[in-house]
Amino acid sequence: MKIRVAILGYGNLGKGVESAVSKNDDMVLSALFTRRSPESVKTHTGVPVYPVYDILDFKDKIDVLILCGGSANDLPVQTPEMAKHFNVVDSFDTHARIPEHFAAVDAASREGGRVAVISVGWDPGMFSLNRLIAQAILPDGNDYTFWGKGVSQGHSDAIRRIDGVLDARQYTVPVESALESVRRGENPALSTRQKHKRECFVVAAEDADKARIKHEIVTMPNYFADYDTTVHFISQEELDRDHAGIPHGGTVIRSGVTGFDGENKHVIEYKLTLDSNPQFTSGVLVAFARAAYRLSKEDSVGCKTVFDIPPIYLHPKDKAELYGSIL
Amino acid sequence: MKIRVAILGYGNLGKGVESAVSKNDDMVLSALFTRRSPESVKTHTGVPVYPVYDILDFKDKIDVLILCGGSANDLPVQTPEMAKHFNVVDSFDTHARIPEHFAAVDAASREGGRVAVISVGWDPGMFSLNRLIAQAILPDGNDYTFWGKGVSQGHSDAIRRIDGVLDARQYTVPVESALESVRRGENPALSTRQKHKRECFVVAAEDADKARIKHEIVTMPNYFADYDTTVHFISQEELDRDHAGIPHGGTVIRSGVTGFDGENKHVIEYKLTLDSNPQFTSGVLVAFARAAYRLSKEDSVGCKTVFDIPPIYLHPKDKAELYGSIL
Repeated sequence: MKIRVAILGYGNLGKGVESAVSKNDDMVLSALFTRRSPESVKTHTGVPVYPVYDILDFKDKIDVLILCGGSANDLPVQTPEMAKHFNVVDSFDTHARIPEHFAAVDAASREGGRVAVISVGWDPGMFSLNRLIAQAILPDGNDYTFWGKGVSQGHSDAIRRIDGVLDARQYTVPVESALESVRRGENPALSTRQKHKRECFVVAAEDADKARIKHEIVTMPNYFADYDTTVHFISQEELDRDHAGIPHGGTVIRSGVTGFDGENKHVIEYKLTLDSNPQFTSGVLVAFARAAYRLSKEDSVGCKTVFDIPPIYLHPKDKAELYGSIL
Repeated sequence: MKIRVAILGYGNLGKGVESAVSKNDDMVLSALFTRRSPESVKTHTGVPVYPVYDILDFKDKIDVLILCGGSANDLPVQTPEMAKHFNVVDSFDTHARIPEHFAAVDAASREGGRVAVISVGWDPGMFSLNRLIAQAILPDGNDYTFWGKGVSQGHSDAIRRIDGVLDARQYTVPVESALESVRRGENPALSTRQKHKRECFVVAAEDADKARIKHEIVTMPNYFADYDTTVHFISQEELDRDHAGIPHGGTVIRSGVTGFDGENKHVIEYKLTLDSNPQFTSGVLVAFARAAYRLSKEDSVGCKTVFDIPPIYLHPKDKAELYGSIL
């Protein structure tokens, strides 16, 4: 019996999950739910598409529902609502609001006797897991997280709102010298500006004042003012040709010392280099969907995070095979 | 109430655990057990030292016993024996014999109603965990493990057994070009020789035939014949001055693709750079000792590995604090 997975929401993340499920032989994609009109949705696999208001008819036909909406407006409502009826997994990524989201989802999933896993992806997600384990191993040390090189959707949107800008793509780029200092175990104190820089590719209207646009970008509070920012004006053709992808990634490092005199240095580094941010996130979601299903089979209930799940639940192979091969 | 930890065996690993426990405020080192005469053992902290044959008197005075013996002769006997009476953690690292060791320890710990965690360290241990999770996230991909730069005790010992050799230190070194190719997601097929090289620092007797010694090293089956090996003859003073440490480390990489046409590449890299192999391993052992204690408090029994334990059990802080900070 394969694990019956369903998707709610068919943006970049939903498409990534559709593809990721197809790479896992122990799973089948049973249904896709959308707020749009189902006939307007063209899927890659031909999975049946249903309107979201029919979803409760599928309570016994789906083992895990993967929620592929956004963290700002969709998931704070959808995850608790769906957790009453389905085992669910989401990628809620507003770090500051995780405790609040956890509480709402935990109550709902316990009410429904279901398992929920929230904030799955790479940050929060794999990066969080690495921070947790590295802190536990090296209690005397410092944490560093560098993001990029990668596209930041929020920063790209902020540039697009400037008068005279037709399109834009913003990359967050770690400062290589800072990264190297951390890797050498030097434990530098780094300001915002010293950790990351920002690189912007901007398509301006023909008659727009590029000097003004550039000034508005580099002085924009919160988004750019605290960073060294480079602005390149390019054509729409160049943007479409060279900046269509959604790459991202980053590095979590813990640098610590051991020994009674702190005489030995150790550096733990976890690094992701991703061609497609949503497709990688989807891969993580699908592995945790497997875990949610298995936990629910064992009569577990309530909300979990990447911190709470034995890693072996993520892997399709059984215990004996894994002990004998990759342990 | 602090977690009461004890150590069996006071070599490099036992000394590392003594130091690691002192960095964790929720633990106290209660006792050290040795096969030597206790009065001959000088500890760093002044922890009470007892002969190993008295250990069963401590059944109710110790929460977790960390076994710091060797995998060849000590742990296959000690871990099952001690697991009947104590929650235990070991660093059994003979990969091929893990299933057999697991079975023996599982039976013993269940008989005694205790929790055991075996094969804790970095390989097996953190490297295994990273292999498991990365395979689950990127099912369509390849695994690579590189070791070093680091001291291999077994290879150093093999050189010391050669006639005319007074002392030696061997380093395993990853081939940088191979590592870079893997990091770029090129998925190279790599022979033993293409992945690692070996570098030897040898102190020869004054009248020894260095050409013969070098020939015996580089042609030694299993140890050196399949590698590009460099031999440096140095003085005992130089060896003691420049090669006294026990650094090690390495890199686990999974390189995979996503998308229906495998169109997006992703690279997950976990890298350790360690000044002291035994002290880092000790840090991992102590974090898993905390987990073993907590599991046993929840009435869990039997043998576990790094695959089976929710990561949050490793960290001293509580759930709410971790959700609100590093998730």
